[in-house]
Amino acid sequence: MPTYRTVVRPEWIDYNEHLRDAFYFLIFSYATDALMERIGLDEIGRASTGHTLFTLEAHINYLAQATLGDPLEVRTRFIDRDRKRLHIEHSLHHGAGGQLLAVSEQMLMNINFHTSKACGFAASVEQRLDALVPEHSGATHPGYCGRMIAIRR
Amino acid sequence: MPTYRTVVRPEWIDYNEHLRDAFYFLIFSYATDALMERIGLDEIGRASTGHTLFTLEAHINYLAQATLGDPLEVRTRFIDRDRKRLHIEHSLHHGAGGQLLAVSEQMLMNINFHTSKACGFAASVEQRLDALVPEHSGATHPGYCGRMIAIRR
Repeated sequence: MPTYRTVVRPEWIDYNEHLRDAFYFLIFSYATDALMERIGLDEIGRASTGHTLFTLEAHINYLAQATLGDPLEVRTRFIDRDRKRLHIEHSLHHGAGGQLLAVSEQMLMNINFHTSKACGFAASVEQRLDALVPEHSGATHPGYCGRMIAIRR
Repeated sequence: MPTYRTVVRPEWIDYNEHLRDAFYFLIFSYATDALMERIGLDEIGRASTGHTLFTLEAHINYLAQATLGDPLEVRTRFIDRDRKRLHIEHSLHHGAGGQLLAVSEQMLMNINFHTSKACGFAASVEQRLDALVPEHSGATHPGYCGRMIAIRR
């Protein structure tokens, strides 16, 4: 999986002078776009299949801050899949030192955008997934997937 | 709790012509800013206490789409709190029909921004929480809090 790379932009900084929580999520969203390109759901692929991916559900853990100009890198792993869903982990790293800044577990659903209904992946997409998933599975960051949120006492 | 209101902006629309996943999260982030104002952690309160809130962890479920110009409303409920953490639920609704569009469960941590360390809420903030929390607790959206992400077979 090619990593998705970006740099912290001025418009992403909040009053704490750090990357705002929602913009970590935006960077993960762009990484999902990069994943879509990789599996044949770029603009041409979406037009030819009539399919796109929707995010159904996401969980994010914030581990460290990022500030203006920091280079960032998202690495993506597959946790599970079925005929219409991808369960993935995006992790955000500092682009220079590699420090882990955030982890997001996400469930993505294949959608026919003409009907807005879930449907199985197109054969062309399945083929790419068959090649890509085994190579980029496992080795997620322990403790950040399968979490429930609670104050533990 | 006053609801946080906004309208879907052009820059929040993705290639599917809908509100991009990350911008639901940005709207929840702005609703957290509104909550901070309500509990005395607006700009003046942050300067006088030396404290701010960081998002530690968030879970979001996407339920329906929103498109350009849709009026939106975030309602916020308290699930739990301790001396330094707030466990909350933000729900996003269509501002006209009230339709539920997304739910986000979040854990927020009080932070001393001089040290970047967690610390107990300031007394002035505790007082406001004591008044606000009982009135705006419970009645979260069933099924969307305490979730783990998985493909269930």
